[in-house]
Amino acid sequence: MIDILFKHIEEKVSLSNADREMLSTFFSAKRLRKKQYLLQEGEVCKYLTFVAKGLLRTYNVDEKGVEHMSIFGWEGWWLSDFNSFLSGEPAVFHIDAIEDSELLLISRANYEALTLAVPVMDRYFRILYQNSLATKEKRLMSSITHTAEEKYLQLICSNPEIINRIPQNLIASYLGIAPETLSRIKKNLALRR
Amino acid sequence: MIDILFKHIEEKVSLSNADREMLSTFFSAKRLRKKQYLLQEGEVCKYLTFVAKGLLRTYNVDEKGVEHMSIFGWEGWWLSDFNSFLSGEPAVFHIDAIEDSELLLISRANYEALTLAVPVMDRYFRILYQNSLATKEKRLMSSITHTAEEKYLQLICSNPEIINRIPQNLIASYLGIAPETLSRIKKNLALRR
Repeated sequence: MIDILFKHIEEKVSLSNADREMLSTFFSAKRLRKKQYLLQEGEVCKYLTFVAKGLLRTYNVDEKGVEHMSIFGWEGWWLSDFNSFLSGEPAVFHIDAIEDSELLLISRANYEALTLAVPVMDRYFRILYQNSLATKEKRLMSSITHTAEEKYLQLICSNPEIINRIPQNLIASYLGIAPETLSRIKKNLALRR
Repeated sequence: MIDILFKHIEEKVSLSNADREMLSTFFSAKRLRKKQYLLQEGEVCKYLTFVAKGLLRTYNVDEKGVEHMSIFGWEGWWLSDFNSFLSGEPAVFHIDAIEDSELLLISRANYEALTLAVPVMDRYFRILYQNSLATKEKRLMSSITHTAEEKYLQLICSNPEIINRIPQNLIASYLGIAPETLSRIKKNLALRR
């Protein structure tokens, strides 16, 4: 499983054999079955999690019990309630598995130790986070200025390989629309093709 | 002006004299008067900008001409249309000065060269970006699940020193509410104290 992580890291930075050996000592493996939780709101998020295999979702439940999707994570993604992981505050997100998943977990203390023991990981995470920030900025702006149809097109164009693995009701929640609205959008798009 | 940048960086990582000398070669200085633009939507964002002095805002204008505030930046902040800066795509944000401002600019090429010449800057930006991601996650969730009053309280509690420098109509826009709604919220809060 750790080889999938190495491969992902080496898309951004080079690792020596010593780096690889060191890296593997900082992570622990975990398997989740479909629908099992990785994190529940109110707990402290103790781990930053790399998805080696499978599909998970990060979401929030509001006071009326309505779920708000935040992020989907599949092979090659990192997941956490990042604020909780960094600050030790209670998590505001739930994370659970949409498919059976294989994960690699790193604790807060090991995360700090890792960047000191393998300094190139500072560069790896710097690049990872800068790309994530750029994407989040785009998403925040898109959520304000775009129609649901535009947002749906953006989603399927930037993630064509994953969209069929995600249940339609979760995609609707991610877009902030009702499942019926998503069905209507898809029908309209199909008619126009 | 560069000393303000050094001080800010050294809150997160240590710099040697050689690092400091090297660093200063990668930045250029710029002054903006109040209301002058740093970036306009549609241009490519060529620089990552450090605010040494002053106050700026990042915002977007929708098709109906309505401004949507995204971020305020004051002393110690970095500003850009980050996606445009990284990808070379046209910017979706405007950035302009709310106060006379003194800025340090680094180009995309120099940003890459800097992290190779002064590797500890990978660590600095990694920490900067991880904190920014955690804040953005919180803000995105807060925009979905919190009332305008809760969002206003969050804003003044996390930025008490800056809130009086920002015009009320811009704060209202940042919160996604009408200026009259903000006035009402402030009046209610004052009555309860």
